[in-house]
Amino acid sequence: MIHRFSFPTPIFFGAGARNGIGDHLKTKNLKKPLLVTDRALAKLAPCEEVKRVLKNSALEVSLYSEIWGNPVKSQVTAGVQSYKSNGCDCIVGLGGGAALDVAKAIALMIHHPGDLFDYEDDMPGALPVDKEIPYWIAIPTTAGTGSEVGRSSVISDDETHRKKIIFSPRMLAQIVFADPELTFDLPPKMTAATGVDALTHCVEAYLAKNYHPICDGIALEGIKLCAKSLVKATKDGKNLEARSDMLLASMMGAIAFQKGLGVTHSCAHALGTVLDMHHGLANGIMIDHALSYNLETVPEKFSDMAQAAKLKSTDSKSFINYLTALKQDLGIPNGLKGIATSDHLKALCDIAIEDACHPNNPRACTRESFEGIFKRALEV
Amino acid sequence: MIHRFSFPTPIFFGAGARNGIGDHLKTKNLKKPLLVTDRALAKLAPCEEVKRVLKNSALEVSLYSEIWGNPVKSQVTAGVQSYKSNGCDCIVGLGGGAALDVAKAIALMIHHPGDLFDYEDDMPGALPVDKEIPYWIAIPTTAGTGSEVGRSSVISDDETHRKKIIFSPRMLAQIVFADPELTFDLPPKMTAATGVDALTHCVEAYLAKNYHPICDGIALEGIKLCAKSLVKATKDGKNLEARSDMLLASMMGAIAFQKGLGVTHSCAHALGTVLDMHHGLANGIMIDHALSYNLETVPEKFSDMAQAAKLKSTDSKSFINYLTALKQDLGIPNGLKGIATSDHLKALCDIAIEDACHPNNPRACTRESFEGIFKRALEV
Repeated sequence: MIHRFSFPTPIFFGAGARNGIGDHLKTKNLKKPLLVTDRALAKLAPCEEVKRVLKNSALEVSLYSEIWGNPVKSQVTAGVQSYKSNGCDCIVGLGGGAALDVAKAIALMIHHPGDLFDYEDDMPGALPVDKEIPYWIAIPTTAGTGSEVGRSSVISDDETHRKKIIFSPRMLAQIVFADPELTFDLPPKMTAATGVDALTHCVEAYLAKNYHPICDGIALEGIKLCAKSLVKATKDGKNLEARSDMLLASMMGAIAFQKGLGVTHSCAHALGTVLDMHHGLANGIMIDHALSYNLETVPEKFSDMAQAAKLKSTDSKSFINYLTALKQDLGIPNGLKGIATSDHLKALCDIAIEDACHPNNPRACTRESFEGIFKRALEV
Repeated sequence: MIHRFSFPTPIFFGAGARNGIGDHLKTKNLKKPLLVTDRALAKLAPCEEVKRVLKNSALEVSLYSEIWGNPVKSQVTAGVQSYKSNGCDCIVGLGGGAALDVAKAIALMIHHPGDLFDYEDDMPGALPVDKEIPYWIAIPTTAGTGSEVGRSSVISDDETHRKKIIFSPRMLAQIVFADPELTFDLPPKMTAATGVDALTHCVEAYLAKNYHPICDGIALEGIKLCAKSLVKATKDGKNLEARSDMLLASMMGAIAFQKGLGVTHSCAHALGTVLDMHHGLANGIMIDHALSYNLETVPEKFSDMAQAAKLKSTDSKSFINYLTALKQDLGIPNGLKGIATSDHLKALCDIAIEDACHPNNPRACTRESFEGIFKRALEV
C-alpha cells in the first residue's frame, strides 16, 4: 500500500510573530492586502494590531469582515468582490476556522472561473484547482481547528445550509504567522471548547487506523502539550506559555489528522447538525464516552497517550478517566443530559453512521455502536 | 523569540512506490529525465528497476552515474553538462546521501549562473537561489541520512577536499518516492551504520535545546521505529516491515533535525575529518559515550526516550545502557580502541569544538568536554 504524507507550509511561531507580517509581504513585493476577518473580530484588539502592523510597513490595507456564523457562499463571493474592487494583490486571513476558511475560498476564487461549489471535493465533474492562487497569509486567533495549516475550506450553501468541502493542497496558506498573544483575549469558554477540539484531533489521529508514524509522533506530542496547558490557558488567558502550547497543539492536531479521525468526530458532527452545537464543545462532551468504545481494541495506544499526558498511572483506562476529569476542570458538561433527549437519538445515529470520519476508527462502528455511545452520554 | 517551522515536500511511501515514478512525471508533462545515481548503484538492481519503470512510461531516460566517494564539485558540473547535452527536462535522484546531494546540486545549477560554490550557505556575498529549479524527484536507497527530505547539499572542493554546504528550501525535491524494497539489498554493515545514523538524528534532535515540539514528537516516534526495527533490518534484509520502519525513521530523523543536533554529531564530524570514518559508523561508535555527557542535564528526556523505545525500565540511565547493547547487536565497535589512539586526541578535539552542532546540545560543551568523551571512547 502506498501512503501519501503531506505537510503544511512554513510557520513563524511565537509571541510577536505578528510583527513580521508587513515586512514579509513587502519582501514579496506585495502592496495591497485584503484583510479577511469575521464581524466580531473586526472590532477587537487582534484585528487592530494586525492593521497597525500592515500599515507600519506602508501597505494599503482593505478590510473585509462580512463573515459570521457558519460561513456561507455569499460571504465568499462578497469577499472576492471586495478584493477585486479594491485592486488587492494578496490576502491576510485573520481569525478562527470560519474566517480562515473564507479567506482560503476567496483566494481560490480570485483566478478560478465559475461558482465556488463547482470546486466541491470529490464531486463528479468538479472543476480542477489549477489556476494561480494569490499569495495569502494565515493568522490564527483561536487554538482549535488548526485551519491555518489545513488544505480545505468548509462553506455552506446559503439556502440549504448544506456544508460543502472544497479541498486542494494549493489552497494552503503560503505562510502562517502564529502569534500566541493574539489568543490572549479568547474567553475561557471558547478557550476550553476550541482547546478540547485540538486535543480531540490529536487523540483521534493517534488512534486512527491509517499508517502514518510521522502523524503519530506529532499527535502524541500534541497530547502532551494539551495535558500540560489546556486547563492553564482556560483559567489564565494571559499565560504566554500555556497559550503558546495550545496554539502549537492546535496546529499539530490539524497536521496529524491527515492520518484520519474517528468515532468522536462522527458523534460531534451529528450533534453539530442536529443541535447546531459548537464543534469543539461537541467533541468535548463526547470524547470520553466515544473513546471508551475503542479501549479494548487498542489498549496499548491508550497507555501511550497516558504516558504522553504524563499521567501517574499509564494503565489504559487511566487516559479515559483523565479525559472525564479534564472536562470537569474545563467546565464542559459530562454528557448530553439536559442538552438532548432520547427523542434526538434516531437523528443523531442517522447522521453519525453516514459520517466520513469513523471508517478510520480503530474499531468498526455500526449504527448500534453509535446508539450505545449516545445513550450513555444522555445518562450523565 | 520567533521560531520558523519548516516541512518537507509530499512523500509517497511504501513497497512498490517506485512504480508510480514514471506516471507521475508524465502527469507533469515531463519526458526526458536525467537519472542521477552513483557508480556502484548504477550496476545494481534498484537502478535497473527505476530505469525499467521510467521506460515503461515511455520516458526517454539519460543516466548520469559519475558519482563516487564524498561528492566533489566536478561531479556536479559533469552532471549539469549531461542534463544539458541530453536535452533533459527533469531529474530523478536515486541513491544514498551522496547521489541525492549531487542530484540537488545539479538541479540548482541548471538555471543558476556562476559557480556552484558561489551559492555556499552563509558565505558573505553568496549568490541568491532565486531562479527556476527543474522538477526533481528523490528516491532513497539507504535508510540513514534522510537527504531526500533535506534542503541542503554537501559537496567538497576537488582540490582542498573542504566540504561546502549549499542550502536552500528551493532545492528540496518536489516529491519523494520512498520504497522500502529498494533498500532490501543494502548489506548488514551498511544497514547498521546508516540506521544508527537515523537513530542518532532522532535522539539528538529530541535532546537539542531549540523549541520545536513538532520535531520532538517526530523524533520520539522515530526512536520508537528504530528500537523496533533496526536490529531486524540489519539481520534480515528482506524483512519488509523492518525496512519500511527504518526508511521512514530515517526521513523522520532528517525532518526532526531542523530543530538541531548535538554533541554526538560534533564527535562524529571530527572522526570523519581526522580518520575519514563513515559518518553513520562514527555516530554509532560515539553515541553512548557522547550522550552520557547529557544525562544529568536532561534526565527526564532520557526517560521519555526510554519510554519511546519501549524499554522495561524507563529510568534515565536505561536508555544509555540500551544504546550500548544495541551497538553490540549491530556489530558496531564499543569505542575507538584499535581505531584511534591518544595521538589523535588533539586533532579530534580541535575539530569537534569548532563544529556547528554542539551549540544546540542541551549541556554546553567545552574543549575539555570533548577530551573527556573521546578519552572514554578510546578506552573501550
